Amino acid sequence: MTDPTDPRLTPLAASLPATVPFVGPETQERRTGVPFAARLGANESVWGPSPSAVAAMARAAQDAWMYPDPEAHELRAALAAHLGVAPAHVLPGEGIDGLLGLIVRLFVAPGDAVVTSAGAYPTFNYHVTGFGGVLHAVPYRDDAEDPEALIAAARETGAKLVYFANPDNPTGSWHEAGTVQRMIEAVPEGCLLLLDEAYLECAPEGTAPPLDPGDPRVLRLRTFSKGYGLAGIRVGYAIGAAPVISAFDRVRNHFGLSRVSQDGARAALADGAHLARVQGGIAAARDRIGAIARENGLSPLPSATNFVAVDCGRDGAFARAVLAGLAERGLFVRMPFVAPQDRCIRVSCGTRADLDLFAAALPQALEAARRSVPAAAAP
Amino acid sequence: MTDPTDPRLTPLAASLPATVPFVGPETQERRTGVPFAARLGANESVWGPSPSAVAAMARAAQDAWMYPDPEAHELRAALAAHLGVAPAHVLPGEGIDGLLGLIVRLFVAPGDAVVTSAGAYPTFNYHVTGFGGVLHAVPYRDDAEDPEALIAAARETGAKLVYFANPDNPTGSWHEAGTVQRMIEAVPEGCLLLLDEAYLECAPEGTAPPLDPGDPRVLRLRTFSKGYGLAGIRVGYAIGAAPVISAFDRVRNHFGLSRVSQDGARAALADGAHLARVQGGIAAARDRIGAIARENGLSPLPSATNFVAVDCGRDGAFARAVLAGLAERGLFVRMPFVAPQDRCIRVSCGTRADLDLFAAALPQALEAARRSVPAAAAP
Repeated sequence: MTDPTDPRLTPLAASLPATVPFVGPETQERRTGVPFAARLGANESVWGPSPSAVAAMARAAQDAWMYPDPEAHELRAALAAHLGVAPAHVLPGEGIDGLLGLIVRLFVAPGDAVVTSAGAYPTFNYHVTGFGGVLHAVPYRDDAEDPEALIAAARETGAKLVYFANPDNPTGSWHEAGTVQRMIEAVPEGCLLLLDEAYLECAPEGTAPPLDPGDPRVLRLRTFSKGYGLAGIRVGYAIGAAPVISAFDRVRNHFGLSRVSQDGARAALADGAHLARVQGGIAAARDRIGAIARENGLSPLPSATNFVAVDCGRDGAFARAVLAGLAERGLFVRMPFVAPQDRCIRVSCGTRADLDLFAAALPQALEAARRSVPAAAAP
Repeated sequence: MTDPTDPRLTPLAASLPATVPFVGPETQERRTGVPFAARLGANESVWGPSPSAVAAMARAAQDAWMYPDPEAHELRAALAAHLGVAPAHVLPGEGIDGLLGLIVRLFVAPGDAVVTSAGAYPTFNYHVTGFGGVLHAVPYRDDAEDPEALIAAARETGAKLVYFANPDNPTGSWHEAGTVQRMIEAVPEGCLLLLDEAYLECAPEGTAPPLDPGDPRVLRLRTFSKGYGLAGIRVGYAIGAAPVISAFDRVRNHFGLSRVSQDGARAALADGAHLARVQGGIAAARDRIGAIARENGLSPLPSATNFVAVDCGRDGAFARAVLAGLAERGLFVRMPFVAPQDRCIRVSCGTRADLDLFAAALPQALEAARRSVPAAAAP
């Protein structure tokens, strides 16, 4: 943007850059004039939402003249029943993105410390910066978040929040429930652990510690965007202690969650069979992405998500060249932002047809990248 | 909520009450166990959305596995074309409510002055308080907002924002374009006029001054919730100078506007014939509400909106009793919060069947209110 900054902005707002945490594939398509042949960059669920969710949304569309229930009572009750907790422990909101913004607003005053991993979810960082918080980023360890280092950093900096995604994006790695539970036990006083479980439906049993909704040390975040295939309607939810959950009522956009979104999410939650089919599709697609990577001499990282980070074996410049080559061949793919994980490209689970395209394009993209990025740039 | 306040909240968040700016009719229904027979309390459009919008939403529901376009490019382009401005001057967001929150966040630092009318839109006040702003409320004058007093108050307090709804909610009153334009010309330096035109589609020609999108003194807010009958999917939009519009990119939830909402709004905008039918229905319903009021010895206030404020002739206690009597008889109706406008009830335009119910219930509700509220309480 070349617009001058409005002189009436608050000092904090004036200090912020105009940011887009992620450039959408539509923006890239408008730039090139060519639609992508496969969307494998945003970890969307190519199997789509449950047909019963689609039907519920179509019904809700007819009722769209009525404001949504600001308490999202029925969705909240359904989530509570699904999770086996009381409704006071769960709150749906406008995607995990929207909930993260509210959480930062509630807990982070300008100058407060916040801990995350270097290269973890940029939208969280965007909100922390947006409210004047000070980010402390802990390096990944063996391509996974480092629970002990995160807790140590939270203690050292007196952090108000520590962000931890399990399974992790963008690496796909995960920790076992016991490790996460030990992390919860170690959260310093005055700090809240944000446990982002967006990809939990893609992970093996034993990834999430049991819900203990009275525990004020952790706030868990889940979503309908991944396993449930509803990224387009923006519904996430928070699970936590009642005083944490009720605090949202001080700042949230009460009527913000669309009637269509509420009904679609509720119907999706009820269709366990669809979720099971998607989980099967994810497992098969992960295996196939791994196989394609190996056929090309690359190393897939283990994944408990609906994507696979593929180590391209050199540095970020090389991986970026591979990504550009895939884009030229019609594939929308993204990659980690921060070294050394930026040696990878991050390939979302696709349909068989999507992955056929990936299998055909990858050797060409690698060949082009090897030509354009001198091998001397390798580490 | 009886939950204790979480000690980790920021000082500002800890100072805020748990608020619900409006209690939804669903909450009241859950309390009584009886669904309302008519929804005449939230100024929803009982004629529903355009059938082509319903169809577009059903189509978008099938694509709901894909994230929405964070730039809302197509909706933005359609709005710009509709308004005759460049896309850089318009931004859709999660309802006017959501946009108001972002605007306050951008322009109001803790302690900054903000001016509104006493009894005007409570959700705006909620956001101002939520970001630590200091509200200065100017009384209504002759049951309408007082442009000169608002500008004078903005000048005296050094306000960052002055809120002005034209047409007004909850009175239904409006000012002519020339008056509004003079207000724009008089906005003090350093202040931004928020011109809330949510009800513009219900108002006579000559209510809105011409768009001058380069003018940095005013930011106009419009919505699909009223005339377009899409309150349930939360789409509002801001029209203003490019540096004001681009500032949203510093703080907004980029992926917050559902794919279903974007497509539904775009289809609704294209269906001018449906809007014209709704406008006809609104005009007829306003007349009928006025006639019913007069038949019962009450005075309808003139309205340029999809509701009519009906002066019940006594004080707030009496009007509240009338409202309670209507609720007992299955009618969801709301009323102004602040004296002397709280002598009114605010009746949304309904279908013929809705207003038949209103015509039947009003005499009974008035009779009950006269019995329960001693006449000595009258002014």
